[in-house]
Amino acid sequence: MAGPALEKKLLLISNSVCHGRPYLDHCADAIRQFLGGVTTIAFVPYAAKDWDGYARQVRSALAGFGLKVESVHETGAGPHTLPDHPAVFVGGGNTFRLLKTLQDRGLLDQIRRRVLDGMRYMGSSAGANLACPTIKTTNDMPIVQPADFHALGLVSFQINPHYIDADPNSTHMGETREKRIAEFHEENDLTVVGLREGSWIVVDQGRATLHGETGAKLFVPGKAPAEWDRQTGWPA
Amino acid sequence: MAGPALEKKLLLISNSVCHGRPYLDHCADAIRQFLGGVTTIAFVPYAAKDWDGYARQVRSALAGFGLKVESVHETGAGPHTLPDHPAVFVGGGNTFRLLKTLQDRGLLDQIRRRVLDGMRYMGSSAGANLACPTIKTTNDMPIVQPADFHALGLVSFQINPHYIDADPNSTHMGETREKRIAEFHEENDLTVVGLREGSWIVVDQGRATLHGETGAKLFVPGKAPAEWDRQTGWPA
Repeated sequence: MAGPALEKKLLLISNSVCHGRPYLDHCADAIRQFLGGVTTIAFVPYAAKDWDGYARQVRSALAGFGLKVESVHETGAGPHTLPDHPAVFVGGGNTFRLLKTLQDRGLLDQIRRRVLDGMRYMGSSAGANLACPTIKTTNDMPIVQPADFHALGLVSFQINPHYIDADPNSTHMGETREKRIAEFHEENDLTVVGLREGSWIVVDQGRATLHGETGAKLFVPGKAPAEWDRQTGWPA
Repeated sequence: MAGPALEKKLLLISNSVCHGRPYLDHCADAIRQFLGGVTTIAFVPYAAKDWDGYARQVRSALAGFGLKVESVHETGAGPHTLPDHPAVFVGGGNTFRLLKTLQDRGLLDQIRRRVLDGMRYMGSSAGANLACPTIKTTNDMPIVQPADFHALGLVSFQINPHYIDADPNSTHMGETREKRIAEFHEENDLTVVGLREGSWIVVDQGRATLHGETGAKLFVPGKAPAEWDRQTGWPA
């Protein structure tokens, strides 16, 4: 009998928009496969400031997938509760704002429990950060202060979305992404997946697998950074 | 009679290293002018992981300015106290680590009081962030969790160091710096100075003035972003 760990089904997307393509277009086939059979999906808009506008945008985009969207800020048993649907989509934006709002509304535990119980979790950018043990590998500015940095902990590793390789010709002296992740490892010992734009991770049956065209860089504490070999899955 | 606000003397530098030049070389004249008469300076290494190594690096670099350096992690009345020198230098690195360590060591208030009492404050990168009301406009990853995001509040505005203008040819979909600052303004109403690499701010006699070759972009809440006109100072 499958325990909670095997029930978890996640689709974690680096970026919702690839340059020059419509919203979620680059991973449309993966979404269709992941959400097969789902007709209504809950949506978490809290990473943005304008929840109504964000819900409208996502409702319109996901209509193309045959999905009805209910945003948690306006539906469910009451505003800011999680409606009882078989899947949830957590959209991108600012990770600090997303986490703080979920903490303030008491929704973090609700989402975690439901995912462990089989609700499918789709997250892009900040929504991918949120699935990790902490938000400590976000790229976002700390524009608001969450109670703490702990997130859903639905996977065992950290994701750095929008991962970008260092430009060898750059004269900018701000830290490269790789240098920032090295700083993370000076203080933390979790593996970090540098998930390039155009890539996504599927978690199913207790395994994480890599998909998309652009790949991901794996930062394992104490080891040299290396490409994620997409032939091999990974315990999630 | 000058009140505390007029006593404040700060030199806030976007970046300690400009591409291809030695440490602090690009602003050497400004440092000499700012620290005129100072022979010994306190140093705060907490933004880095290796305090001994960082202190060695800065001791060597500032020797060229005729300055003796005492790092707060090893000197003063005891380790992790602020020695009684006429100036302090807060070096760059990770802003979250810098703030948390100062909070944990009870040094934040000590530094603030001493600067209001006339101790000259020089900060680069994370050290410039620290002088602001909060660290909410840092570029760094939140690798550790400070008790809160409030910083020294020695100036009335926020600084975004290493400010970089958007590349119109980029296909990367991660937020531009300007977009990140716009997100900050969705939640906060402080002016942000986007301080480009190669630029610095001097605060003296209650005024902030801009120096260096590269300029700064001013993000005033509710107004379109605009270049800081370097002919005009600014209440600090």
